[in-house]
Amino acid sequence: MKEIKGFKFAGIHCGIKKEKKDLGLIYCETGATCVGVFTKNKFASPTIPSSKQILSQNNNVLNCVIVNSGNANCLTGAEGMKNINSVLASLNAELNLKENSSLTLSTGIIGKPLQVDTIKKGINKLVLSLTENVDDFVKAIMTTDTFEKVAYKTITIDGQAVNILGVTKGSGMIQPNMATMLAFIMTDANVDAKTLQETLNYSVDSSFNAITVDSDSSTNDTCLLLSSNTGVKINNNNVKAFKAAVKEVSVELAKLIIRDGEGATKFITININNASSEIEAKNIFYSIANSPLVKTAIFGENPNFGRILSSAGKIQSNIDPDKTTLWLGEYLLYENGSITNQDKPVLDQYMKNKEINITLDLHLGDACVTGWTSDLSHDYVQINADYN
Amino acid sequence: MKEIKGFKFAGIHCGIKKEKKDLGLIYCETGATCVGVFTKNKFASPTIPSSKQILSQNNNVLNCVIVNSGNANCLTGAEGMKNINSVLASLNAELNLKENSSLTLSTGIIGKPLQVDTIKKGINKLVLSLTENVDDFVKAIMTTDTFEKVAYKTITIDGQAVNILGVTKGSGMIQPNMATMLAFIMTDANVDAKTLQETLNYSVDSSFNAITVDSDSSTNDTCLLLSSNTGVKINNNNVKAFKAAVKEVSVELAKLIIRDGEGATKFITININNASSEIEAKNIFYSIANSPLVKTAIFGENPNFGRILSSAGKIQSNIDPDKTTLWLGEYLLYENGSITNQDKPVLDQYMKNKEINITLDLHLGDACVTGWTSDLSHDYVQINADYN
Repeated sequence: MKEIKGFKFAGIHCGIKKEKKDLGLIYCETGATCVGVFTKNKFASPTIPSSKQILSQNNNVLNCVIVNSGNANCLTGAEGMKNINSVLASLNAELNLKENSSLTLSTGIIGKPLQVDTIKKGINKLVLSLTENVDDFVKAIMTTDTFEKVAYKTITIDGQAVNILGVTKGSGMIQPNMATMLAFIMTDANVDAKTLQETLNYSVDSSFNAITVDSDSSTNDTCLLLSSNTGVKINNNNVKAFKAAVKEVSVELAKLIIRDGEGATKFITININNASSEIEAKNIFYSIANSPLVKTAIFGENPNFGRILSSAGKIQSNIDPDKTTLWLGEYLLYENGSITNQDKPVLDQYMKNKEINITLDLHLGDACVTGWTSDLSHDYVQINADYN
Repeated sequence: MKEIKGFKFAGIHCGIKKEKKDLGLIYCETGATCVGVFTKNKFASPTIPSSKQILSQNNNVLNCVIVNSGNANCLTGAEGMKNINSVLASLNAELNLKENSSLTLSTGIIGKPLQVDTIKKGINKLVLSLTENVDDFVKAIMTTDTFEKVAYKTITIDGQAVNILGVTKGSGMIQPNMATMLAFIMTDANVDAKTLQETLNYSVDSSFNAITVDSDSSTNDTCLLLSSNTGVKINNNNVKAFKAAVKEVSVELAKLIIRDGEGATKFITININNASSEIEAKNIFYSIANSPLVKTAIFGENPNFGRILSSAGKIQSNIDPDKTTLWLGEYLLYENGSITNQDKPVLDQYMKNKEINITLDLHLGDACVTGWTSDLSHDYVQINADYN
């Protein structure tokens, strides 16, 4: 079950990549309400200002999102923006849509001219492939991803089913700064743009904005939330349940990205508990999760937990070493300023798990953050030494 | 010529490591003036507060610095401090020194109890090994370093030779936050503590505080500057030349650390030119230099320069993509918001160099920062997956 009322999808090979699918389409014939969050990278792809402008000019109503993989159309200047407009004009013409009915996003290598003619030639085939099933679309947006990332949830609101379908792609250059690489969350609920934007902001904060593979925020990060408005009306009385369900789908997608982080062999959950503020907890989370020494130790199944504390301690914070406790899974490792557990065989055994849980309790306040990351392996180095 | 008037050195194997030297001593019989800069890591080793206290209690006069490698004596709480005092009492007794005449520093693995008895048993042998030559001391402070790091400079001030000898060790957990891992700079000039501290602060800012291997600031970072005061008096008229010489030695040591960064195959110089402030230039330097995607691309000899801009753009700054230019060596890669050079064979050839130069010119102001880093290789992953 990967369908959602009001939306159709397509994914084809147009020729940017050698063989794999590289062009995808989300289509809502009646016009979906659409909101987004976008990368804050200063060298953002021209797809970012273009998408923001289109959403604003069309009052957040949209028929199409066309996405290519294999080329990020980034650092491409005026030519990049011209190519966007050219792709969108072809798509709108193909579907008899008026201006500003579609937006386009790109993912792949940075700094190469977009293969605009290749894409335009593929548009007719793309439109003819539209179907209720999202599978081909998901394949078409993948880059170094090794599996497809889909999350689906149905909740009941006012006696009616509300469906939420989310799809995303990773899996390097991942430390989203307000949105992820590319994620698309669709619902059939009837939601106004303002509520939709609030829901999206609320959801990304503890999902896409709580993960990191390699600390590198992409130039193309975009997360869109679209409603086909075919179902139940979301209002003040039921919005809480709706937000919770969208957040749940977002967290599931974010975790899938980490599971497929480039070269990942471990899935690492980091809890920063009882910090003095949420922002401080988040900063400490990132400092641990991005530490190459922590990540390589976990790859090596090496309980070198001193590195966890060292990486937590290297940034400005209110951390008090004497109040802090550190847990690896259920094992207390550090308390009252010193080591409490040196049972190496037990810890060595724990490190063999595919899922590693780290909990740092600061005992300073009541802000808690949970985030996810992957380890740093030979495969990460190899993938990124070769990628071009 | 690795001697300096007023100082003696020793380095022996005491038994912390299996075979290699692991205990070193710097000795100034007449009492050296000594100032330091220390890690800001919240989980600092007890050697840090201990050293600060001793320097303050003895008005920055010191006879001995004893250093062990193989164990950082960190996350060791009250026991760690007790062990420091025990080592220092033994050393002071051995040399008939009064309290607060010596300080001790440690480097190596975090979170293991210090082998205090092993060290104390080695002290007699250590003292008997004292010589004018610094070589054994340098060997004794090494951890994953693959070569010894020494810099020496002689300048003439008021017609007299002033000698400056610096030694240091790296080579992982390297993004010093005001001092490096361990560095010792000695001079025979006659300098008061205040001038010495100013000189040290000035020198570390553009040397040890402008390098990164892996973004991880150590818990034990310490840089000491010691003067035996046997030579020319430093005063307002000649202090500029003295500061410049100490800075030159510091930069040389910092660059040696990067050349020996864990797993390093490339030596990367990054110039951030014409930024709106020095702090912004430094932040952009670190954002590029710590980017796993930039570091793996350089390891792979892959001119994937989009990653350089992406990593520069991912942090808050005043960067204007339309004003920014990017140079790889002498090749202009990016200008006026887009790519200017796609001559892949030429860039591929450049990437084969052992020394890579990146220059990002922001055209915003007049702040310029130069820093150094290494690449991210399979060997880095292997070294740190195994280290325990």
